[in-house]
Amino acid sequence: MAIVLGIDPGSRVTGYGVIAAEGSKLTYIDSGCIRTVAAENLSEKLDIIYRGINEVIHLHCPQEVGIEQVFMARNADSALKLGQARGAAIVACTFNRVPVFEYSARQVKQSVVGTGAAEKVQVQSMICRLLGLERAPQADAADALGVAICHTHMTQGMIRMAGARKVRRGRLRR
Amino acid sequence: MAIVLGIDPGSRVTGYGVIAAEGSKLTYIDSGCIRTVAAENLSEKLDIIYRGINEVIHLHCPQEVGIEQVFMARNADSALKLGQARGAAIVACTFNRVPVFEYSARQVKQSVVGTGAAEKVQVQSMICRLLGLERAPQADAADALGVAICHTHMTQGMIRMAGARKVRRGRLRR
Repeated sequence: MAIVLGIDPGSRVTGYGVIAAEGSKLTYIDSGCIRTVAAENLSEKLDIIYRGINEVIHLHCPQEVGIEQVFMARNADSALKLGQARGAAIVACTFNRVPVFEYSARQVKQSVVGTGAAEKVQVQSMICRLLGLERAPQADAADALGVAICHTHMTQGMIRMAGARKVRRGRLRR
Repeated sequence: MAIVLGIDPGSRVTGYGVIAAEGSKLTYIDSGCIRTVAAENLSEKLDIIYRGINEVIHLHCPQEVGIEQVFMARNADSALKLGQARGAAIVACTFNRVPVFEYSARQVKQSVVGTGAAEKVQVQSMICRLLGLERAPQADAADALGVAICHTHMTQGMIRMAGARKVRRGRLRR
């Protein structure tokens, strides 16, 4: 069984989602938001994100982390703020020696819904179906669960591919 | 005596500079660069910055950290990269419970040279004079020393102001 943590970083709200994957069976473990609104300055804000992710890692011991790739930020100012939040979240993982994998928003949608052009509502409803949730979690937590599901699908796809190659190689050797 | 660490973060090169301040006397302790060129991906890059700053903190035990404020990034892409490096560097400080103070480039120049419009070469030469260095350190390390000097000057200015206010208050009480 693999425990996967998904993170959706933001300077105000950082969403996180933890799932367990056993073969194709996905189980919801935890999700939530790390809010930095009460922070008085930048370093306090980043510290809240770092300690929050650190706590989630210590609580659930994920083996791998998925995080959404940023392709186009709105502007330089928001990109800087998002970058700082991402930096704080990523080093909380690497310092705990949990590898981080990046996925584009398109990859997440493709993996969860089956099309890269899916609407946010479709993604959320599919997350609920895949994880057996009665209602969608808060938006940022749902996005984080989406990246976690995406990472699981991608890894399983790679394992299947590696397995297929192994079989082929075995056949070639005969 | 106060030990101050200055940081000039960057996604490729992060400069650091450590100085000691005793009254108005400044002493050079250490400076250098944390290079991330060998890193294979983003999380490894940020991990190098985090661990590098962590190591400098454990080695020199600074009481406070100065970091340059970013006002205008070139574009959203470079702002995101810079933000991630800043985030990693800042949480390395806050996790070690060393408070971080931000200063604008103008404040650093004003504090080191005496004018906010000073050229980079003037700033570097003044850093050498103030710290008794025979030659300027590498550019990013010099920038980091500049922020450390700026923080020291600002703090001493505040202490002097607080002292003056105390005296004034004392007089009022008589």
